[in-house]
Amino acid sequence: MVHQLPTGAKDLLPLDVAQKRWIESRIQQVFQSWGYQRIITPTVEHLRSLTAGGAVDPKSVIQLHSNSIDILGLRPEFTASIARAYAARLGSHVATCPQRLYYNANVFRRRANSTSEESFQAGVELLGASGLLADGEILLLLAESLDRVELPDWQIILGDARLTGALLDLLPEQYRAKVRQSLAKLDRIAITEMDLPEDVKGYALELVDLRGKPKDVLSRLSTSKWTSGLTGEISYLKSLIDLWESTNQNASDRLILDLSFMQTFDYYTGIVFDVACNNYVVAQGGRYDRLLGVYHPQNVSYPSIGFCINLEDLQQALQKQLPQTLTTSSWLVVAKTPDAMQAAFAHAAKLRQEPQIEAIELELEFRDADVVRDHARSRGIPQIAWVSSDGAIASETTAI
Amino acid sequence: MVHQLPTGAKDLLPLDVAQKRWIESRIQQVFQSWGYQRIITPTVEHLRSLTAGGAVDPKSVIQLHSNSIDILGLRPEFTASIARAYAARLGSHVATCPQRLYYNANVFRRRANSTSEESFQAGVELLGASGLLADGEILLLLAESLDRVELPDWQIILGDARLTGALLDLLPEQYRAKVRQSLAKLDRIAITEMDLPEDVKGYALELVDLRGKPKDVLSRLSTSKWTSGLTGEISYLKSLIDLWESTNQNASDRLILDLSFMQTFDYYTGIVFDVACNNYVVAQGGRYDRLLGVYHPQNVSYPSIGFCINLEDLQQALQKQLPQTLTTSSWLVVAKTPDAMQAAFAHAAKLRQEPQIEAIELELEFRDADVVRDHARSRGIPQIAWVSSDGAIASETTAI
Repeated sequence: MVHQLPTGAKDLLPLDVAQKRWIESRIQQVFQSWGYQRIITPTVEHLRSLTAGGAVDPKSVIQLHSNSIDILGLRPEFTASIARAYAARLGSHVATCPQRLYYNANVFRRRANSTSEESFQAGVELLGASGLLADGEILLLLAESLDRVELPDWQIILGDARLTGALLDLLPEQYRAKVRQSLAKLDRIAITEMDLPEDVKGYALELVDLRGKPKDVLSRLSTSKWTSGLTGEISYLKSLIDLWESTNQNASDRLILDLSFMQTFDYYTGIVFDVACNNYVVAQGGRYDRLLGVYHPQNVSYPSIGFCINLEDLQQALQKQLPQTLTTSSWLVVAKTPDAMQAAFAHAAKLRQEPQIEAIELELEFRDADVVRDHARSRGIPQIAWVSSDGAIASETTAI
Repeated sequence: MVHQLPTGAKDLLPLDVAQKRWIESRIQQVFQSWGYQRIITPTVEHLRSLTAGGAVDPKSVIQLHSNSIDILGLRPEFTASIARAYAARLGSHVATCPQRLYYNANVFRRRANSTSEESFQAGVELLGASGLLADGEILLLLAESLDRVELPDWQIILGDARLTGALLDLLPEQYRAKVRQSLAKLDRIAITEMDLPEDVKGYALELVDLRGKPKDVLSRLSTSKWTSGLTGEISYLKSLIDLWESTNQNASDRLILDLSFMQTFDYYTGIVFDVACNNYVVAQGGRYDRLLGVYHPQNVSYPSIGFCINLEDLQQALQKQLPQTLTTSSWLVVAKTPDAMQAAFAHAAKLRQEPQIEAIELELEFRDADVVRDHARSRGIPQIAWVSSDGAIASETTAI
């Protein structure tokens, strides 16, 4: 039927849009105030460009119908596109690094039941920067964005792909793959039941338990007899967490350190994080120092980091803070007779010039005065201006 | 190559985005001030929904790859989607009509050379309203939108599908199709050479010449011996043009009346218009009183009218008025040493609270002071704040 939407698609009516804009305008203000500038990449790109980084399964990309050998798809996320757009634009000139970029647009994924899903994301990419200041900036910018929309009770789960990799590398090589697999699945029982030397099993269990308050996790890590070669990596993470805690009031409640946090794909090269709020993952991100090299004509890479906020999930988690009604027009301007039309348009134009006025709407028919009053009332318009052909105005407050 | 975009696709870098936003924010302000509310429809819909109105050639729609019999496509315009979304929502209740809706998003078309093209549109739909006030509102709203972005020298070419249809119906039936065809092609010579009775040919030539200053065209029309049965339609158009001219300073220079303006497809049911500026068609629209019936489960229709502005064409036509540089950050905040990082973030946060500040950015490395100064200069950042670990701030104006 022509009036039906495909499964999974939906219309955002004016109140949905007002709620979405409430969130987006606040988040964009924060991004801009940290010096981030907006970029818009195309909705349609080559499938090989969208998936080159390795973070996206080509099967999840919605593809276009085509007779050509070039497969085109709808973007499932923005990091790959922004890496593609900027890889060759960064260089040795002092002005080109770092690049602070943000996006706010729609993405598309094919779901398991073969329906497509369009959703909205806002996020940043900080290209050509590494170290504590860059990682700290991204974490603090994320926190400020979530606070600006008054998200309650969120927690950031922070991992470190590089450190977790190094911790795994301390295992004797023959056990590494097995432990890594169980760690990625958070399968503590599998490790318990593995046929491992006692000390190796003890260390593998230490790894799977490296989750909790940052202080506790770091202290367990520092006192382990295995990690003496990793003092640099551990102290980096400690400095980053100190920075986080120093600049954020509720910081210690808001950060869970999780060094068992592993991706099954090999994409992130440093810190990696999710933001959870109730049952929603409202944001995620991490450092990806090799990605730009994939898109650079000579494979030159630049260290980079970013995050993305899932706007629908954020909107679900926020509900109470969001506007619950639409702004109504301040006046309904009514031409009393057909020869008063010019005067009615002129009066509406004059009212629109007043600085506190958001909207003025016109009555478009010549209806009975009481029907017009009913209409104004049901729309929540507080005032009616009756305009006569000689330009005379009779104002009336709507009885609501 | 993974770093290449498909033919026809492009990235909008921050300056392009700033120019686009300059236009969009002004146009949206105008839409909102007339009481229009934003709607967001899905990017992907059933092909049959997108093309049911008859204004879109299914071959121009970009289709998704699918194994299902339901063909999905990317929206090529918004009117069909908004008609689909609201057809069943309008009703007899006093609050539901009229609906004033606007959109501002991307659309997709397949081009002759089989490349796809993504472009941006902003426009309005006024659903459930007809008559002089509704038609007048749409024309005046369009004019105010174009004036708000300071578009120079634009002209609206106004036709009337209903009147032009009625004028053609005055021809003896056996000649109608032939003349109609030549009129749609604006082929005056074909009419001259047609084998028609002398008076019929004279009238057909009158029709093809019904283009020019509104007064002249209407006066020719009123004095034609053929049109005595159309006084109602002619006087409606005269009233609309009077309304236009009364409310707009340069109105008479800006309107071309063109009653030879015909679509080859049967979609518009009343006034129809293009806005031309130099060689660009920056906007178009018209009245479509039958479209909502196509999407209503019981085929109930509501008279409606709308227009869309082609944002890329408008951006091309505007160039000079648009921002030519990006807003730069007001300060570059520099941690002088690693132990000054916390103080640097705190100082940047403090600066961001000042109301006149748009953006503050941090230096992310510990570089030589002169390199930092070069960096600030090349980015156009006017002030540098050097932050010490004890929180002491040394401010410096960038020598630009």
